[in-house]
Amino acid sequence: MLKNTRYIDAALSKSVDKTPVWMMRQAGRYLPEYREIRQKAGNFMALCTNPELACEVTLQPLRRYDLDAAILFSDILTIPDAMGLGLYFKTGEGPAFEKPVATVEAINQLSVPDIYSELKYVTDAVSTIRKALKNETPLIGFSGSPWTLATYMVEGGTTKNFGKVKGMMFTEPKAMHKLLDILAQSVIAYLNAQIESGAQAVMVFDTWGGVLSTRDYQAFSLQYMQQIVDGLIREKDGQKIPVTLYTKGGAGWLEAMAATGADCIGLDWSIDIDQARARIGDKVALQGNMDPCILYSTPEKIEAEVADILAKFGNGSGHVFNLGHGIHPTIDPDNVKAYVDAVHQHSVQYHS
Amino acid sequence: MLKNTRYIDAALSKSVDKTPVWMMRQAGRYLPEYREIRQKAGNFMALCTNPELACEVTLQPLRRYDLDAAILFSDILTIPDAMGLGLYFKTGEGPAFEKPVATVEAINQLSVPDIYSELKYVTDAVSTIRKALKNETPLIGFSGSPWTLATYMVEGGTTKNFGKVKGMMFTEPKAMHKLLDILAQSVIAYLNAQIESGAQAVMVFDTWGGVLSTRDYQAFSLQYMQQIVDGLIREKDGQKIPVTLYTKGGAGWLEAMAATGADCIGLDWSIDIDQARARIGDKVALQGNMDPCILYSTPEKIEAEVADILAKFGNGSGHVFNLGHGIHPTIDPDNVKAYVDAVHQHSVQYHS
Repeated sequence: MLKNTRYIDAALSKSVDKTPVWMMRQAGRYLPEYREIRQKAGNFMALCTNPELACEVTLQPLRRYDLDAAILFSDILTIPDAMGLGLYFKTGEGPAFEKPVATVEAINQLSVPDIYSELKYVTDAVSTIRKALKNETPLIGFSGSPWTLATYMVEGGTTKNFGKVKGMMFTEPKAMHKLLDILAQSVIAYLNAQIESGAQAVMVFDTWGGVLSTRDYQAFSLQYMQQIVDGLIREKDGQKIPVTLYTKGGAGWLEAMAATGADCIGLDWSIDIDQARARIGDKVALQGNMDPCILYSTPEKIEAEVADILAKFGNGSGHVFNLGHGIHPTIDPDNVKAYVDAVHQHSVQYHS
Repeated sequence: MLKNTRYIDAALSKSVDKTPVWMMRQAGRYLPEYREIRQKAGNFMALCTNPELACEVTLQPLRRYDLDAAILFSDILTIPDAMGLGLYFKTGEGPAFEKPVATVEAINQLSVPDIYSELKYVTDAVSTIRKALKNETPLIGFSGSPWTLATYMVEGGTTKNFGKVKGMMFTEPKAMHKLLDILAQSVIAYLNAQIESGAQAVMVFDTWGGVLSTRDYQAFSLQYMQQIVDGLIREKDGQKIPVTLYTKGGAGWLEAMAATGADCIGLDWSIDIDQARARIGDKVALQGNMDPCILYSTPEKIEAEVADILAKFGNGSGHVFNLGHGIHPTIDPDNVKAYVDAVHQHSVQYHS
């Protein structure tokens, strides 16, 4: 039996004693112990593909802070890599692919990877981490959204304009839908394999849905997240598996996101959480939504900001405290402690 | 007397015969004749600082297309450059400053530049272009918003995380307000000098306001755009000078933007224009809002998209057709003709 159920309960909008808290990218470069292991491993993917090392860095932030969830340490682009695109990392420029999907022909050659062989390192990491957590804290599995994966696959890496992927979307919509459907099937298989291997919750990161218009977001991003929500294992061994959808820049589309049937919607910091709760908080739980840059300031200011967001959400459950995006690599680890402790300390009053 | 008054009239919500159309970055790299002049000039700033060359590239798109406005060809970072920060361009990485404003001390040394001496090349370009336009088409002047200028000044160039500028905002809010106030005063002097030199409308580009929370947008970006709106020359020689505010990612804050007293609000493509009109269209005109990536598709699809946006806006004036952001350098110039012509052709029915 899971000991700390705060995260699972809040993501399912069930009552809790305190608001649970975790951070996107909580296992990461801001921690000196992470940087040490990464240096020894040689590179980022060497960490991801070694279940023991992935387990170690997943647990590092939980040793320092009173976090209510662990999240699988992995990369967002494991699926395209398993499809044969050849993921690599350019220093200072982020992820890139040796073989981008630049044509309709390239899309026609893609197929759903066999998760348990091509991505065995991920399911092994999940089961290793789950064992190491000893049912103290729940483990969150994750994947990039189909649209977000497609942007990297078509552009060949990070982009500012999204010209190639949107160009394909507008000129070859059928091919783009085919690509997104293959990706949605892959994400379903991938997340279900993580759940079968021990993940107790899952999250879909739609980092780039916010670059679309409302119509194109519905057609090319949300539709495929809907497909994923419909295809996921939602209960295992009598325990519900909460699913969280997060679209950066998606504040305009919260109602549509909530209508997918996801349990929880992740917010960035562009919308106040009281407004988000007024719009969709009776249907789903909310995750968020502190600007990660607040962590550059002082413990006092961090505490005040946490208190403000908690007050804005108000009484009752259905709030998973988090940053609105991943923690930055240059944050002082001591400031993270102020953040985590403030959530627990200031939230008691809202749960009675 | 100005011959084509469509742009000015629509930006002031007065009736027009057809919806006016122009494009952000319409003088730019997608045009082969622009690339030729830029190559001869040697670099981008050599174009900006030479009034004859700036005039020539400003006029280039008007020779090709039936555009309803010209916009001054210049850079967004001329003000910080005039303050002594040393603007330069890294190949493939965009603008950067030799002397970023990294400390409170550096802010304390800044002052409002003397526009007519330090930025004489801009006011000269404005009067040269105005003369060359022969009152056929109006000339729009522009500036970056104080917050947007501050992001480049503090970060030293482009950024993904905005960690330095937000770090300063959260830890040294007084210094940041001082910087933004100096910038707001500078932008007022700069835009008023453009108006005195012949600009018949002005636009403030808040490219990076969308990375802020609602509270921080109000305090650190919108407040200073309000200061600018209040300080601008709004009428000259009996002609009103419309002012447009544009915040990329600002769809959540349209009501607050409209309340500044600006004549027109620029939209990106993340919100449908019918929704924007329902929210603020009785107070201000709207500019936008086609995704620039649509221009990667075919003339037929571009025409259909233009018709769709015009239909969404519906009957009556108060719409300046534009892209939601600048045109990309790899767009086919023939597709731009399809865009411009479609606006005029399909909009007649909405103005009777």
